[in-house]
Amino acid sequence: MSSSIDFYFDFSSPYGYLASTRIEAIAEKHGRSVNWQPILLGAIFKVSGQAPLTTYPLRGDYALHDFARSAREINIPFSMPDTFPVGAVAASRACCWLKASSDDQHDHSKLTEFVHAIFKAFYVHNQNIGDADVVLSVAESVQINKDSMAAGLADQSIKDALKTAVQEAIDRGIFGSPTTVVDDELFWGSDRLDQVDRWLSRGGW
Amino acid sequence: MSSSIDFYFDFSSPYGYLASTRIEAIAEKHGRSVNWQPILLGAIFKVSGQAPLTTYPLRGDYALHDFARSAREINIPFSMPDTFPVGAVAASRACCWLKASSDDQHDHSKLTEFVHAIFKAFYVHNQNIGDADVVLSVAESVQINKDSMAAGLADQSIKDALKTAVQEAIDRGIFGSPTTVVDDELFWGSDRLDQVDRWLSRGGW
Repeated sequence: MSSSIDFYFDFSSPYGYLASTRIEAIAEKHGRSVNWQPILLGAIFKVSGQAPLTTYPLRGDYALHDFARSAREINIPFSMPDTFPVGAVAASRACCWLKASSDDQHDHSKLTEFVHAIFKAFYVHNQNIGDADVVLSVAESVQINKDSMAAGLADQSIKDALKTAVQEAIDRGIFGSPTTVVDDELFWGSDRLDQVDRWLSRGGW
Repeated sequence: MSSSIDFYFDFSSPYGYLASTRIEAIAEKHGRSVNWQPILLGAIFKVSGQAPLTTYPLRGDYALHDFARSAREINIPFSMPDTFPVGAVAASRACCWLKASSDDQHDHSKLTEFVHAIFKAFYVHNQNIGDADVVLSVAESVQINKDSMAAGLADQSIKDALKTAVQEAIDRGIFGSPTTVVDDELFWGSDRLDQVDRWLSRGGW
């Protein structure tokens, strides 16, 4: 089977970052590609009745400890950004624009490069990716035309594309970041990637 | 190191059941024993600001799907009980009584046997383990004296022991079921048992 794996994530989600560093290798192992799909947990939480993880008593403290521990386990750099959580609207719209304008202004792999660069800016370099100017600088750092992207971010069709993508995610039952979807099977959590790998190996169970 | 692994669980928690079937093998592999510690999520949720998993929109539906899928993955029988969630006060007190009265009326392994029997009664045989009479019948089925246990459940010191245990769990930062504690390191979730295994293998990271 050659269909892609849908990888839903909020750029503000630490577990989204952790999983983003592993998903491509898992997909590739099974002859799949990754469809990067940013979502906005703020909008989803209104439907799901949840709140940002770190705001919960007890669970929030555990999460802060676990983000760092889980990053150490897979040997990737991680530090909690000073501004957290952030609204990743600009960065997410930027992905929609990259999808809409690929082949035209750049190839598909630019989106992958941009996703990794934004996550790194936030979780390694402590940059406030909630700020559209920061998003544009990150884009520039991976050779994406900053002015074209700025125009894209202001484009109503791009704003609508993100809104539609978030609603489609909700309609699909997605409530958290990351969520990996393999042939309509949802797996929530960065700690489920091994399960995703086994699912792909066995073709379900 | 020969200290035990603390395994905190709510009998009403499906993920607690799933993990209960795997934790002994992991502990044994690393020369550890399992300290079964029932907790009451109802009391903990008051502190943590959470609610039973299945009551959340989206997340609840996912959870129901995931309970069954995760059980299939590890090849154990599972079906959602008709009455869910249940208040597992009686079953949890019964564990406190078994701990308090071991060596005296029975050996330590009886607690392990009882924990598995209660989980099976609930998740395999669809019995309402919220009912104290059901708990006593399950006890009887694993050769525990039913009348002695009934007296134990009514004993104020046993009631207090459970209350204290739940408070101690909260003080330790525990907010969900199952939580596995290895040398003061908390791991929340049945999907973290592989991580617990790796942690024990490497001695942390």
